[in-house]
Amino acid sequence: MKISSVKGTNDYLPSEVELRDYLQSTILKVYEKNGFRRIMTPAIEDIENLDKSDGGDNLNLIFKILKRGEKLEKALESGNEKELSDLGLRYDLTLPLTRYYAGNKDKLPSPMKCIQIDKVYRAERPQKGRLREFVQCDIDILGSDSANCEVELICVTAQALQAISLKDFKIKINDRRLLKGMLLKCGFEADQLDSVCISFDKLDKIGPEGVSEELTEKEFSKEAIESLMKVLEQRPFTLDKMSELCEDTAPVENLKYIINTVKAVTGDSFEVEFDLSLVRGQGYYTGTVFEVESTKFRGAISGGGRYDNLIGKFIGQSVPAVGFSIGFERIFSILSESGFEIPEKAKKVAVLYNKEDYASGAAKANELRAEYDVCSFEMPKKTSKFLNKLQECGYYGFWIVGQSEEVNVLS
Amino acid sequence: MKISSVKGTNDYLPSEVELRDYLQSTILKVYEKNGFRRIMTPAIEDIENLDKSDGGDNLNLIFKILKRGEKLEKALESGNEKELSDLGLRYDLTLPLTRYYAGNKDKLPSPMKCIQIDKVYRAERPQKGRLREFVQCDIDILGSDSANCEVELICVTAQALQAISLKDFKIKINDRRLLKGMLLKCGFEADQLDSVCISFDKLDKIGPEGVSEELTEKEFSKEAIESLMKVLEQRPFTLDKMSELCEDTAPVENLKYIINTVKAVTGDSFEVEFDLSLVRGQGYYTGTVFEVESTKFRGAISGGGRYDNLIGKFIGQSVPAVGFSIGFERIFSILSESGFEIPEKAKKVAVLYNKEDYASGAAKANELRAEYDVCSFEMPKKTSKFLNKLQECGYYGFWIVGQSEEVNVLS
Repeated sequence: MKISSVKGTNDYLPSEVELRDYLQSTILKVYEKNGFRRIMTPAIEDIENLDKSDGGDNLNLIFKILKRGEKLEKALESGNEKELSDLGLRYDLTLPLTRYYAGNKDKLPSPMKCIQIDKVYRAERPQKGRLREFVQCDIDILGSDSANCEVELICVTAQALQAISLKDFKIKINDRRLLKGMLLKCGFEADQLDSVCISFDKLDKIGPEGVSEELTEKEFSKEAIESLMKVLEQRPFTLDKMSELCEDTAPVENLKYIINTVKAVTGDSFEVEFDLSLVRGQGYYTGTVFEVESTKFRGAISGGGRYDNLIGKFIGQSVPAVGFSIGFERIFSILSESGFEIPEKAKKVAVLYNKEDYASGAAKANELRAEYDVCSFEMPKKTSKFLNKLQECGYYGFWIVGQSEEVNVLS
Repeated sequence: MKISSVKGTNDYLPSEVELRDYLQSTILKVYEKNGFRRIMTPAIEDIENLDKSDGGDNLNLIFKILKRGEKLEKALESGNEKELSDLGLRYDLTLPLTRYYAGNKDKLPSPMKCIQIDKVYRAERPQKGRLREFVQCDIDILGSDSANCEVELICVTAQALQAISLKDFKIKINDRRLLKGMLLKCGFEADQLDSVCISFDKLDKIGPEGVSEELTEKEFSKEAIESLMKVLEQRPFTLDKMSELCEDTAPVENLKYIINTVKAVTGDSFEVEFDLSLVRGQGYYTGTVFEVESTKFRGAISGGGRYDNLIGKFIGQSVPAVGFSIGFERIFSILSESGFEIPEKAKKVAVLYNKEDYASGAAKANELRAEYDVCSFEMPKKTSKFLNKLQECGYYGFWIVGQSEEVNVLS
């Protein structure tokens, strides 16, 4: 038997599960306190639903489930590879949410504020930091186009991060319409914008020259590229500058409202700043996009945005929506690597009893449970080796029935 | 798009998730207090591991995952159906536990007492009460052959059930070796025993005549069947009677020890009784088997037993093991259908604010969060319809910013 877990997936030791459970329940409590409610959907979805979803590259990463019985035989006869599977593992929580909303919206208040904390699956090529099974931790508000939704998602996500002791972060925000408006004005075509955005996203890393080179390689109009380079001379792009550069200033006003309201509500416990180069990968975002960047550990630890057209596309009824997702696996790895200690964690004590006298062991263990998590063990053959192992496993102390008069601290 | 979840799987409404989360966290807390520690394994397993596992009929119910890319092309060319998949969804938590133990036992104390609460998958023909995705809730003790393990698993499982307000139950216990010993003495062959046990299991329902008919249909020796019928005249089978009927009385003494010790430790909060007809389905049980039967709702709500040979078979090193599994979906459906109320559940209050004044809404909501879970909403167009919906969804009350002077209770 192969004893390691499937490549790209993890077995978790008790201390790791303890941390994961603590983080999830702490985040969940903050979300619930703020009136969001948890929903649950299955990990397996109809393959047609998955295929029709707006998942971009993720559609190539779906784990497909083989048909069974007669249906499989027919599919094999047909010789059509696409016929082989009827189900697949979800690659994110947004498609299931869309389906769920279509089926259950009448049973829920509108707007619906929901939490999803669950596993998703992607057939990534296994490599460090890329998991094939991982947890996503999302809040979404469905059914409202008000900018107050963005304000709330930002405030609540920040609160959740602070609750798990991640305090060094800033929030970056942008509106896709701003960047696109500016690019149109430079002379790029509407159908080129996604590709231009991908290059523009690298501005911080490769500078204007790099962006210009990449756009030239992609064979976009020389005039448009030159025009863009001229605009880039006006950096840094503040929101006031954007008012001058854009014809439609509504998105600028919207961002100003969001930033000011977040600041009014949260004070100065974290920065919120406009960043024109923030794009975010997903194709379905239609307006605001935002990201939490750790200022202590590199990179983004949460991201989200508004996706007003996605649900309508599936259920044939326009439903504005906006969501924010905490990168759970990133946070778990940051906190476990930085030696984070779970606050107020119950101490673990072992009670060692004689095999013939289970009842005395149980009675002492129950007594100590008023204060500790207590595991009872029959007296081991090699006591000191056993105690060393307990200490390695994070035990605080032990009690030998018939010998100890207080908890012996392992040290 | 198909808006219902895949057949045999469920979408859960917020109130249902709340109950599921409450039950799981309450059970988890009891297990942890007793020194068991939660481990986690992925839902996807290597298909060869699954195929080689001792899962009986469950092996026909594995959701197989299609290979990807070049490997899939090669498999299709080979024309061999078995080559099509490299992974599968786990059908229980025992195979992953075995694999986990093989890989991690050196990092854990021995015996290892572990908790698993997680989803498993079976490609059942969809029908009422048969789920294709469901939660199992297991505790296991690996690495000890002591009968104290059985005692502890019974006590801790009973405690978990009591903690979620299931108090009307009795525990039935048997040892497979007893029934098998008796059947051998009657003249059945060793390789017939599993089949005879399946018929014997129905004794309560179809009576001795029914069992005799079924065994005759199965064409077992007439003498053996007659001999069995004679033994059955000596019902009810008490443990003392079994001492007379069996050559090897060690299992009888073992059961007496377990029953007496459980009673000594737990008093009379539940019954523990010997039941010779208790067999339990899994092929891998080697000795004691037990079951929790609800005396208020029909049928078994938990089950388990000792499986001393299973792990050795996989990892080539003998490891005694025993486990007890709570039927989580059964318990969830019993409690939701019987109108169970989560104790000390936070009351939900809605704060309604003017769209233009998010900050006031947020401030009031935060103030009320000292006591309630608070969801803020912009003032709806149709207030009374909106309030009705809140009530339907389990809200306790509401507050209109600028109008209310106390929480208005919905009723």
